[in-house]
Amino acid sequence: MSYKLFIPGPVEVSDKTYRAMTTPVVGHRSKDFVALFQGIQPDLQKLVGTKDPVYISTSSAWGVMEGSVRNLCAKKVLNVMSGAFSDKWNDVSLRCGKAAGALQFEWGEPADPEAIRKELATGEYDCITLIHNETSTGTMNPLKEIMAVINEFPEVMSVVDTVSSFSAVPVPKDELGIDVLLSGSQKALALPPGLAILSVSERALERAESLPDRGYYFDFIEFQKNYEKGMTPSTPVIPLIYALRSKLEDIFTEGLEARYARHERLNNLTRAWVEKNGLELLPPPEFGSKTLCCVKNTRDIDIAGLNAALKEKHNCVIDGGYGKLKGKTFRISNMGDETDETMTGLLAALDELLPEFLPA
Amino acid sequence: MSYKLFIPGPVEVSDKTYRAMTTPVVGHRSKDFVALFQGIQPDLQKLVGTKDPVYISTSSAWGVMEGSVRNLCAKKVLNVMSGAFSDKWNDVSLRCGKAAGALQFEWGEPADPEAIRKELATGEYDCITLIHNETSTGTMNPLKEIMAVINEFPEVMSVVDTVSSFSAVPVPKDELGIDVLLSGSQKALALPPGLAILSVSERALERAESLPDRGYYFDFIEFQKNYEKGMTPSTPVIPLIYALRSKLEDIFTEGLEARYARHERLNNLTRAWVEKNGLELLPPPEFGSKTLCCVKNTRDIDIAGLNAALKEKHNCVIDGGYGKLKGKTFRISNMGDETDETMTGLLAALDELLPEFLPA
Repeated sequence: MSYKLFIPGPVEVSDKTYRAMTTPVVGHRSKDFVALFQGIQPDLQKLVGTKDPVYISTSSAWGVMEGSVRNLCAKKVLNVMSGAFSDKWNDVSLRCGKAAGALQFEWGEPADPEAIRKELATGEYDCITLIHNETSTGTMNPLKEIMAVINEFPEVMSVVDTVSSFSAVPVPKDELGIDVLLSGSQKALALPPGLAILSVSERALERAESLPDRGYYFDFIEFQKNYEKGMTPSTPVIPLIYALRSKLEDIFTEGLEARYARHERLNNLTRAWVEKNGLELLPPPEFGSKTLCCVKNTRDIDIAGLNAALKEKHNCVIDGGYGKLKGKTFRISNMGDETDETMTGLLAALDELLPEFLPA
Repeated sequence: MSYKLFIPGPVEVSDKTYRAMTTPVVGHRSKDFVALFQGIQPDLQKLVGTKDPVYISTSSAWGVMEGSVRNLCAKKVLNVMSGAFSDKWNDVSLRCGKAAGALQFEWGEPADPEAIRKELATGEYDCITLIHNETSTGTMNPLKEIMAVINEFPEVMSVVDTVSSFSAVPVPKDELGIDVLLSGSQKALALPPGLAILSVSERALERAESLPDRGYYFDFIEFQKNYEKGMTPSTPVIPLIYALRSKLEDIFTEGLEARYARHERLNNLTRAWVEKNGLELLPPPEFGSKTLCCVKNTRDIDIAGLNAALKEKHNCVIDGGYGKLKGKTFRISNMGDETDETMTGLLAALDELLPEFLPA
């Protein structure tokens, strides 16, 4: 029943990565664990573009997304919202008992830096959350422009989710002035799900220290204290750390620039297919994600039928749209380990099947 | 550099379990995931001894230990403390901004049901935490007697950590009247670390519903809502769910009674070795854990040296004591997949090496 995933997470995992996961577990308070943990730090920091530590959390990204709000928001958090995941971050902030502002953009529209400036200028906020690449709409926010605005407000701690862009496009944390950059394992990193990473600025650690009820499991200060010993606060998901080590080898063997270029090239292959078939992306093309395409279903394709046939005849699946966009859009991922060959193969299979699933 | 772990978690993982982890990942909102999740429920419920759902959390046990306090404590939580982990639960409760009482017992002494009754009778508490098998001291608390006392106080929600006893000794949740039973993957279940399970009573769900700031990632109500769809609230650690499925097969192939008997038998092998060598357990024997032995280092053994030699010559390790007991005790695990052969082999190796590491 195995089939290949072209959905925007979890994505296909390589045999090498699976093999890495079967490396024998070691005690997480042993020297062998410290060697493992510290051994991957330099590559992780290079990938994040930071001199700050990169912590490893045994959770999905949502854990550290919630944790960031608990660690950093004393007054009020501004949630920049433009899709299923960024919208949800507002709900999660409120559930943590925080005051939270909702800056809502249309799904498929990028967040507008000017609107963010206007909201932050109220002086109400000490924290802001942003999803770099909103996976539900295939939209990549203008991170550089947005960070330039946020950095006009020194009191405001910035939390940027890069779950589906990390390692596929550059997100230089220190250069952009991001306080917390976080990501998950099962998207552009092409690892199985179950691990999140986060890198936290010194000033964000100072803020965390001043907050009394940030809890334990996602406490930044605990991450830092244990990092200094080469460890994690709680028992770590060791198989996925082995997988991460293996993936970092892959990434730096390919080379960062080559990896970024490959994602762009494969994304353009999908975009060309979209255009050729008289379809269009949900977001304006210049804000389209480089790791997936979210395509408007303007030709009324029977997406569920198409996907079932794809699975049956070609042993792979795409995604039929997320949340309120289900059926109205479909999504094709090019993140992780995809190649010209795998993407061309997928698009040819879609070409073959498409006529059958168009309205009569 | 691979070596066998006789430490009390993480413990040795079988090849079958490792292989199971390499089953291809599926989308966690797909029918294939629902089939996986729902497929293991009957066995999980049998193992927990409950009619309630068994949720799967992508975290170590500490995540759900913290989450339980956030979900259930409106007034004040009583933390029953008798070792490194149960003591820490009090600290974690306070860090969640909760009022928390510390009922401290000596490390190595079991918790006393009468003392618990006296404390609960103050009427201050609406929640209590207990670690069934305190791994740091190798002490198994008298769960039946303690639960009988707790159940005299209907307002008090009981949270029982069974991380290092679950599946090795019976912990029949419904029969004992436990509100939240939780466990982790890397101890008696002999899976790699990174997954926790929890089963929550209906009345505990009702309590949770009434608490405003329980957050999202460990929210019981989210677990329940998603459970009803055969899913998890956040992206699940799928490789470990495959591993859990594989382990449940192992457990019910061996048979529960046989599994419990094996743990008791292997634990007695270690106890006999302890006695033969003029040593004794830290706890009173009748409260000694059945999954590990925490041994007082009354003969002033050079534990670090012994363990290094064990690793070098016999390719395995025991544990040199946890926290303030480091060096004063050592711990030998018999949990998970150990057999008469593996335990006898370990004890023979210790016999061989011991004289060299005794004081001259």
